[in-house]
Amino acid sequence: MSEDLTEPGGKVRLFVEADLGAGAEILLSDGQAHYLRHVMRAANGVAVQLFNGRDGEWRAVLDIAGKRGARAACDRRTRTQAASPDIWLCFAPIKKTAADFVAQKATELGAAVLQPVLTHRTIVTRVNVERMAANAVEAAEQSARLDVPACREPLPLAKLLAAWPAERHLVFCDEAGAPPMLEALKGVAPGPWGVLIGPEGGFDAEERTAVRALARTIPVSLGSRLLRADTAALATLAILQARLG
Amino acid sequence: MSEDLTEPGGKVRLFVEADLGAGAEILLSDGQAHYLRHVMRAANGVAVQLFNGRDGEWRAVLDIAGKRGARAACDRRTRTQAASPDIWLCFAPIKKTAADFVAQKATELGAAVLQPVLTHRTIVTRVNVERMAANAVEAAEQSARLDVPACREPLPLAKLLAAWPAERHLVFCDEAGAPPMLEALKGVAPGPWGVLIGPEGGFDAEERTAVRALARTIPVSLGSRLLRADTAALATLAILQARLG
Repeated sequence: MSEDLTEPGGKVRLFVEADLGAGAEILLSDGQAHYLRHVMRAANGVAVQLFNGRDGEWRAVLDIAGKRGARAACDRRTRTQAASPDIWLCFAPIKKTAADFVAQKATELGAAVLQPVLTHRTIVTRVNVERMAANAVEAAEQSARLDVPACREPLPLAKLLAAWPAERHLVFCDEAGAPPMLEALKGVAPGPWGVLIGPEGGFDAEERTAVRALARTIPVSLGSRLLRADTAALATLAILQARLG
Repeated sequence: MSEDLTEPGGKVRLFVEADLGAGAEILLSDGQAHYLRHVMRAANGVAVQLFNGRDGEWRAVLDIAGKRGARAACDRRTRTQAASPDIWLCFAPIKKTAADFVAQKATELGAAVLQPVLTHRTIVTRVNVERMAANAVEAAEQSARLDVPACREPLPLAKLLAAWPAERHLVFCDEAGAPPMLEALKGVAPGPWGVLIGPEGGFDAEERTAVRALARTIPVSLGSRLLRADTAALATLAILQARLG
């Protein structure tokens, strides 16, 4: 083979919906075909990496000759599927650039679910879930993840709390005061986990009471520094992942 | 006073070079004058917050009438100067958007110094230090910091290491393998600190050996996830700050 696009990290890694397995031939999307032909200038017969969130990572050989659309034939499994830590990132919607940033970075940092939450002080109420998902897919392809976070439709905070699973911890970034995060997490039972980040204006008193009323809520502080909502989301995920090891 | 722009968090916080003290009258920059007049539409006589990295935070009353430029008269000290944790963020330059992002987020997360470092695999070699400083000032004004990180000119890695202070820890994000960060930091003596983040391509073998040869180098891993350089920089700062409490 003249060329191979499966170097460490995956020079070309593509997320697909279809099942992956020995000999499976995957029809790639028009967007992926365009990317391979015109951005990567990939030659026919080169190898790429495919993943679908279920079947691990596969080396696949491209067939992008002819007009019938780009295809990739699974050759061999290069990684077996590993579960991501089960962390839901629940965050008040933020304006476009910051929202792209959160979707990308939260994916790199291993969030399993991206859940926009509408609070009393939420300013941005329109959420482009499709755009969020596109950012998540791109970040997953580039960060060697074997899955893509589930991107959920926005929920009012009250609904999120009412449906919160009994066994799932909720790391609550409470700007109104809480113990430092690593201290607050000492001796906490294993996950699953959730992280809740408020809007720029913070939560109001009623919301704080409701969040703290959940049995598994863990109020935490990120220190005296005033962090933007997107920075707080990234920092909390990074610290939680470091704590989980 | 009809209006007050000093609500919690500082609705208007401005960084100035001049000394601050009771009765001091500060001449604001043209950019600050424009921002106050045309963006904030601030009225004459309203109060704002000023800081210079030395004298704490001061409530100051605006004089923006007339043509002689905007001024602010220090009224009273609202916060006393507190030292930021002494953390140097040393990072291989990255392209514009990511560079803006790192300067802003690293400032929010309390870095004391932003030090671009040129490595063998550094792709972006041109660094706009003025732009980096402008991003740092804006982030400091908005994040309630009392100082602004020092933005340094780029240095080759060899020069950075040759001049590295003997007592300063260097948290080295080594993609080639190291203990998890919180584990690696267990029982480490107090700072000062530095964090070293490589370029997208990582450090080469020679560079890794040179970095690890420093007495105070602490190699760390951020986990199995493949993080972009900008994400790694912010995650490492967030985890280090959480560890320092």
